[in-house]
Order: sequence, then structure tokens, then C-alpha cells
Amino acid sequence: MTPTASDLRHCSIASTLSLIGEKWTILILRDVFHGVARFDDFLRRLECSPAVLSARLKTLTDAGLLRKVGYREPGERERFEYRPTRAAVELLPVLVGLMQWGDCHMASDGGPVEIRSRANGKRVRAALVDEDGAEVSPRDMQIIPVQKPNGG
Amino acid sequence: MTPTASDLRHCSIASTLSLIGEKWTILILRDVFHGVARFDDFLRRLECSPAVLSARLKTLTDAGLLRKVGYREPGERERFEYRPTRAAVELLPVLVGLMQWGDCHMASDGGPVEIRSRANGKRVRAALVDEDGAEVSPRDMQIIPVQKPNGG
Repeated sequence: MTPTASDLRHCSIASTLSLIGEKWTILILRDVFHGVARFDDFLRRLECSPAVLSARLKTLTDAGLLRKVGYREPGERERFEYRPTRAAVELLPVLVGLMQWGDCHMASDGGPVEIRSRANGKRVRAALVDEDGAEVSPRDMQIIPVQKPNGG
Repeated sequence: MTPTASDLRHCSIASTLSLIGEKWTILILRDVFHGVARFDDFLRRLECSPAVLSARLKTLTDAGLLRKVGYREPGERERFEYRPTRAAVELLPVLVGLMQWGDCHMASDGGPVEIRSRANGKRVRAALVDEDGAEVSPRDMQIIPVQKPNGG
């Protein structure tokens, strides 16, 4: 069964990319997992315009990827920190996968950071696993159309 | 150690996205893994303009993600099929991760396809694993700056 144009319009890869595929959006997400939380800290690291940063933080918050937590420095008005939600954490295999591919295929000398397990210090990478957590070779995966109960 | 602006400019996440983050590019990659190989078949499925398709196929071929293989139908000139390279196969955890996240967070009724192992028919998903192939919880990963020998 070949997916139809309608299936393609509902493609989850395209939907997710429409949300996180923009450069600043993905860099904000990356920085959130580096522990960056405050507007001025994002701005200093990313060197984008405040208006762009503000818009992208709103997109990520509206999409449920960041949540705002109020804080107040002595003598100042209340401000917000941005923290990753569970939905953002679920994107980590994608971020790590993008990083490792770029490190391998686009960087001349590996990347500036590496990902390790807190538990045992071993290197961490994105991979495909089955329901039991056993690794699956990309060559052993198959794509199967889902039969919906309503036939759609 | 906080990454510098220079580290960020060399970010492998951003580099990879600059290559595959464009909507048509990722949809072509997805279709290649569905077994689509010929220009006219991409065109029929994607419903983009021939000029856009042609440009994106060239980008992916130049980047080493697709390779062109000649074929000739009886009485016609030689044409090319586009096949995924090993570098493209290494992107599969990213594509599967984007799909599963969208299925979970953006689709109202799951996605149109599912990924299963050829070996045992079990569902396949993108995850983080350590060097021994053991799954690592996203909460147990840590990001560590790499100390380069030249101090850069």
C-alpha cells in the first residue's frame, strides 16, 4: 500500500520539523539542555536579535516544549526562566542524532561536546531499538502503513 | 566550561539541520527509505515543483546522502535513480525520532506508518544507547566539552 498525498500531508516527520526545524529554535532547545534558562543568557550565547529570541521562546512554550517559571532578583521585576518539559526530553534522541551525524560527516575534527552516561561514563549515541530495548540495525527496519479502523 | 560563541558556530546540530532541515529535503530522504528512487515518482508523491525537486536531489547527492545510478527504459535516454548511501542510513535514528515525536505530540490519531524490525516484527523507536548498546534514559545523559589537543 503506497501512502497517498493525504498521508504525506499528515507526515509526522514534516510536522515535527515545521516546529523545531528552524535554526534558532533548535539552538535554543540545545542550550536548554546545557542548563541555560534565562533570556539574557540565551541572547549572549546565541547572538541572535532579542525579537527573534523572544518569538522562538514563545513558539517553544506554546508548543509545550518549554515551561516558564517565575523568578525575581532583589529589587527587580519578576522574570521567567525557561525549562524543558517531558516533551522536550523526548526529543533528545533527535538532537543527539543530529549532533552525532554532524560530528561524523560535517565537522573536520569531531564536535565541541560529547554525550556520556551519568551512570557509567560511557559514550551515548542515538540508535534504533525494539520494544525490549535491543538495538536494531537500520537495515533491519521496515516501514509499514498503519491500517486505521475507519479505513482512512 | 561554557561553550563559546565559536563552539556554537561549529555546532553539529546546526550544521546537520542546515543540510537536512528544509522541508522538501527531509521528505525526499523519507521517501528514499520508502523505496522511491525515480524523479517522476518523487514528483508524484511530493507534489512540489520539478525545479525544487531537482535542486533538492542535487543538494542531497552533493552532500553524499544519495547516489545516482543510471538506468534506461527501452527506447528512452538514460535516466537516474537515487539511492540512499551509508551516510543516509546513519540518519535513520533522526528520521525515526522526528516521526515518533510527531506521532505522539502532533498527530491526533498516531501516524500513517509504523516502523518494525524485520527480524522479529517488534516496533522500532529511536532511543539513546551507550557503547554497549544498553538504553540510557535521557535524564541520565550529560554533555561534556571535548578538550582538543591544540586547546581550541
